[in-house]
Amino acid sequence: MKHYKIAVLAGDGIGPEITQEAIKVLKVVEERNDVTFELMPALFGACAYFATGDAFPQETIAICDQADAILKGPIGLSHEESKKIPVDKQPERGALLPLRRRYNTYANFRPVSLPKALAHFSPLKPEVIGEGIDLIMVRELVGGLYFGEKEMGVNAQGLRYVRETLEYDEAQIRRIMHQAFKLAMKRRKLLHNIHKSNVLKSSVLWNEVMEEVAKEYPEVKVVNYLVDAAATALCLNPAQFDVMVMENMFGDILSDQGGGILGSLGLMPSACLGDDKAYYEPSHGSAPDIAGKNIANPYSMIGSVAMMLENSFDMADEAKNVWAAMQGVFADGFSTADLSKPGSGVKMISTVEFGDKVVEKL
Amino acid sequence: MKHYKIAVLAGDGIGPEITQEAIKVLKVVEERNDVTFELMPALFGACAYFATGDAFPQETIAICDQADAILKGPIGLSHEESKKIPVDKQPERGALLPLRRRYNTYANFRPVSLPKALAHFSPLKPEVIGEGIDLIMVRELVGGLYFGEKEMGVNAQGLRYVRETLEYDEAQIRRIMHQAFKLAMKRRKLLHNIHKSNVLKSSVLWNEVMEEVAKEYPEVKVVNYLVDAAATALCLNPAQFDVMVMENMFGDILSDQGGGILGSLGLMPSACLGDDKAYYEPSHGSAPDIAGKNIANPYSMIGSVAMMLENSFDMADEAKNVWAAMQGVFADGFSTADLSKPGSGVKMISTVEFGDKVVEKL
Ligand SMILES: CC(C)[C@H](C(=O)O)[C@@H](O)C(=O)O
Ligand SMILES: CC(C)[C@H](C(=O)O)[C@@H](O)C(=O)O
Repeated sequence: MKHYKIAVLAGDGIGPEITQEAIKVLKVVEERNDVTFELMPALFGACAYFATGDAFPQETIAICDQADAILKGPIGLSHEESKKIPVDKQPERGALLPLRRRYNTYANFRPVSLPKALAHFSPLKPEVIGEGIDLIMVRELVGGLYFGEKEMGVNAQGLRYVRETLEYDEAQIRRIMHQAFKLAMKRRKLLHNIHKSNVLKSSVLWNEVMEEVAKEYPEVKVVNYLVDAAATALCLNPAQFDVMVMENMFGDILSDQGGGILGSLGLMPSACLGDDKAYYEPSHGSAPDIAGKNIANPYSMIGSVAMMLENSFDMADEAKNVWAAMQGVFADGFSTADLSKPGSGVKMISTVEFGDKVVEKL
Repeated sequence: MKHYKIAVLAGDGIGPEITQEAIKVLKVVEERNDVTFELMPALFGACAYFATGDAFPQETIAICDQADAILKGPIGLSHEESKKIPVDKQPERGALLPLRRRYNTYANFRPVSLPKALAHFSPLKPEVIGEGIDLIMVRELVGGLYFGEKEMGVNAQGLRYVRETLEYDEAQIRRIMHQAFKLAMKRRKLLHNIHKSNVLKSSVLWNEVMEEVAKEYPEVKVVNYLVDAAATALCLNPAQFDVMVMENMFGDILSDQGGGILGSLGLMPSACLGDDKAYYEPSHGSAPDIAGKNIANPYSMIGSVAMMLENSFDMADEAKNVWAAMQGVFADGFSTADLSKPGSGVKMISTVEFGDKVVEKL
């Protein structure tokens, strides 16, 4: 009997609601496999700050340190609410970035996937979706502007200024490239390298290292795209992409555009992999405006569980079952409010009902 | 009789072809107004580099210095071709950024506009476009990562690294905010402020200054959007936006996404305004793959002329005529290859035919 410890950081806003549905799924997987999951809930994000004065408290750190994997809900407050917390204590700077840094989860896998049969979810026309969107963005997650030095002050002219640095070294680039090329080898052997080498020197080094690593994967076809051109292409022809690799900030923007072309950020789970520890989280925010209403889409959180099963617990088959169960709910014509607008023909169900239906299908 | 000198930098790739059509339009405007345009062609970009060893040669600088306005075509080479030029001599770093810096054209206006009647051009469903997309992105153009210090080297561990800086001071932010708020006052009094203040300190200052400037425009409603959320929203509900303001790199990515939701980067003209000089350019690249084929869409270049007429020559009425003439060509069911895919019902015309039809309508 295998035994895994999972730190459960439900987070803010819709976090607790969608986490609850993800846990239901974990329970089913536990029941029918030779495995037990020890769930270790802990405070993280704004909720932790309000309870303890710290968005990533020591107690939570201790729990995460012990865990075999971390399941993390979205965190954060509305623009206005977040002003009530000192900048460096806010959930993003005070909890999320320290989490990423602590476990060095440098490889963020963000699938952007929509089968042809669900093209109606997308704001894109069916002919643009073609045979379906099925790409994974591989985002570097612990470098770049996110983790560079920051300096705020008043300059010689008496003006307030800010200066922050975007830094990468070849080792940081090499390891994310290996992740991307390995993933490409398991898939269509097609890698889109996203960069901005006509302006950024960091992209010049990025591309140099990419070309070095590419030699180790001669079967993978590399296509280079400027980040701006990629943003155009994701709207005009998303089906061309399979694996895309990019630095941290570009990955933040393009992956949210990915949620846009799918029709909802609720369809965006993710895996954040380090060499020793991994955590799993939806790509989206905590959506405070719809929190507590039982209308959020738990797909992103349940999908994050599926990615955990595959990557952290070597349970690829159960991961497939979870994906299939969610697709089954959609195939039956159901979804949460984000994807069942009046006139769409999709029957609206609640967060809890979505979780229940996934469990039924499993 | 007014007399204006226009530096004409046709650029690379499709640049010369689309510039030619823009010039036809200028000729018509000249004929029927009390104005003469002195066109001063000059080499700029890769073509200049190959001819002179310098992408922005002294001679071109002298011409631009004298000019009342600059009309600039797209520049640049394909990914592979650009490797033949030393990084700092490449058309972007060697010509475009120096041009922006020299004339301090800090305010880049990029309209993203598609009337309801042309919704078929867009990859988005008609119901997503609703009553039409009609927004302007106001992009800061001479600050941020584009113009920060860059350092490449080998670090203490013997690893190659790059470090670049993103810097803004309050004066840089204040002047672009004034441009954005003034534009909002002329339009729907709605301003979307795009930032990433949950990670970037530069966005924290950006937002501080925005709130200070906002006090001078109490009628303008400000809506704050994280850049990633904006990328989602541009796909899901672009019609909500009117004026959007953002820093340089965000503007690069989101404006190309803008071209994506319109259906073609060929629909993206722009104005780059400094306090003393302005230049006008399409937002897109030089598209070397389709150069010389008489198939490129000259809309972006002719639209740039319209923006020049309005902003540099105080000829707002003629600008309106130019926009209307182009809309008229579309309304007659014609467009270039980018927007007349088989099955679209749009009749394909060449670059030259598009220009001719615009002239006919004028
Ligand atoms: C919450 C925020 C700091 C975070 C990021 O920018 O990485 C989020 O947008 C994401 O994409 O995971
Ligand atoms: C060519 C390139 C340097 C330029 C930029 O990044 O600003 C272009 O993409 C643009 O948007 O005008």
